[in-house]
Amino acid sequence: MLINSETLLRVRYAETDQMGVVHHANYAKYLELARIHWLEELGVSYKGMEAQGVMLPVVAMEFKFKISAYFDDKLTIKTMLRKIPTVRIVFDFEIYNSEKELLTTATTTLVFMDSKTRKPIPCPAYLITIIKNANQE
Amino acid sequence: MLINSETLLRVRYAETDQMGVVHHANYAKYLELARIHWLEELGVSYKGMEAQGVMLPVVAMEFKFKISAYFDDKLTIKTMLRKIPTVRIVFDFEIYNSEKELLTTATTTLVFMDSKTRKPIPCPAYLITIIKNANQE
Amino acid sequence: MLINSETLLRVRYAETDQMGVVHHANYAKYLELARIHWLEELGVSYKGMEAQGVMLPVVAMEFKFKISAYFDDKLTIKTMLRKIPTVRIVFDFEIYNSEKELLTTATTTLVFMDSKTRKPIPCPAYLITIIKNANQE
Amino acid sequence: MLINSETLLRVRYAETDQMGVVHHANYAKYLELARIHWLEELGVSYKGMEAQGVMLPVVAMEFKFKISAYFDDKLTIKTMLRKIPTVRIVFDFEIYNSEKELLTTATTTLVFMDSKTRKPIPCPAYLITIIKNANQE
Repeated sequence: MLINSETLLRVRYAETDQMGVVHHANYAKYLELARIHWLEELGVSYKGMEAQGVMLPVVAMEFKFKISAYFDDKLTIKTMLRKIPTVRIVFDFEIYNSEKELLTTATTTLVFMDSKTRKPIPCPAYLITIIKNANQE
Repeated sequence: MLINSETLLRVRYAETDQMGVVHHANYAKYLELARIHWLEELGVSYKGMEAQGVMLPVVAMEFKFKISAYFDDKLTIKTMLRKIPTVRIVFDFEIYNSEKELLTTATTTLVFMDSKTRKPIPCPAYLITIIKNANQE
Repeated sequence: MLINSETLLRVRYAETDQMGVVHHANYAKYLELARIHWLEELGVSYKGMEAQGVMLPVVAMEFKFKISAYFDDKLTIKTMLRKIPTVRIVFDFEIYNSEKELLTTATTTLVFMDSKTRKPIPCPAYLITIIKNANQE
Repeated sequence: MLINSETLLRVRYAETDQMGVVHHANYAKYLELARIHWLEELGVSYKGMEAQGVMLPVVAMEFKFKISAYFDDKLTIKTMLRKIPTVRIVFDFEIYNSEKELLTTATTTLVFMDSKTRKPIPCPAYLITIIKNANQE
């Protein structure tokens, strides 16, 4: 495990379904928030990265749902970089509720992509530097 | 009332919330489907229109929710063009369930926009011609 | 205008569409957040209210979209109670970006509903008291 | 592989994001549609099943995204039951566009749950019978 961040969010009413719990599709959105926050903690703006022509589409994702989340729950998402990124960047996630119960584990794999050619590219050098520096702290 | 279309759709599970009904935000998505279908019935592809540099953002919308819709309901959306479009195009909608109950009425106003300049433009001439011809049938 | 609150939120990536702006359906979700926050500022939990058998479905909503919101924007939603609630409660909203531009105005009307009978009921007395007290401050 | 179904759907505008493709969270909703349709092809209503007190929450899901889907694309989802369900039911999916390109593969695992106790229960006997009969045809 390399660099971690913690992201807090609150479950929105619109994210529930008629089972009375968070609909599972929303977890993909929660992880996206968490990754963008993880970058932000490293001083990197995903918005800025896209403006510079680098996109990060998700190419794989896996979820295990253990305990449901409910409307108004305060969730903590722990985001963990798995290894130094190459063309791919892999994150592991743990989602907890405010009672510290582990609700969900997940993994997402994303690919650095040139937004014009839509072809995969290596992780930008500045990001690797930032990750390595952060990892040594 | 000028030209009408009817669009059928089925309520998705993910569109419900913990009240056990369709969450109100989804109706904006239903109307979008209905407008795109309305264009399609006139032989116009919204996708093609965007590819040619014309976008149609929503600038105003109003809803009155009378009766709830439920998971798996088969809804009919009646889409009615209010008048010949100018820079703006205004639609009125009625949403019915399969028991012909009127669930929701709505109005949306959209603006034709040049997708490069992001400035308003008049309704494309070919679309006005199509609307006038359809209206005379 | 009676009692106001201000709610901050950040635009999520998943809330954008291929026009590159926030898809209009998401604004209904933003206002829901803002109303729940408005209640919270008065010391009232909407979750608790539902647990006590009172629901607040939206029966009407209106939006005027003036300026688009973008991914990562920090939005401020100003929520304004229009008058002392009866069976209905009406809110006006203004959504601003971080440059203080007014992006969107909106109004929503909700109805207090008994969650068992699904019939309209008057606004709970304790909520009227809280509103009147807050209004005198 | 036991019993298969094919579900058609059309990508909605609201399902795109500012990369110009379907946002990955929507695929979880697409698979949900496909599972409900798979049941329907067997003569089973998921709505009816819930009304009888059986829920089917998702406990695990995995996606591999190979090629993007775009607004207005006509997608075909192939749903494949992996084996006779027990407390769990596992489906594999393939999503194709209209040019028969394989866009996405996925797997979801769901658990039969008593909607009152919220405890896992075995797959209802009538559903196992239907599956076995369909499999022999």
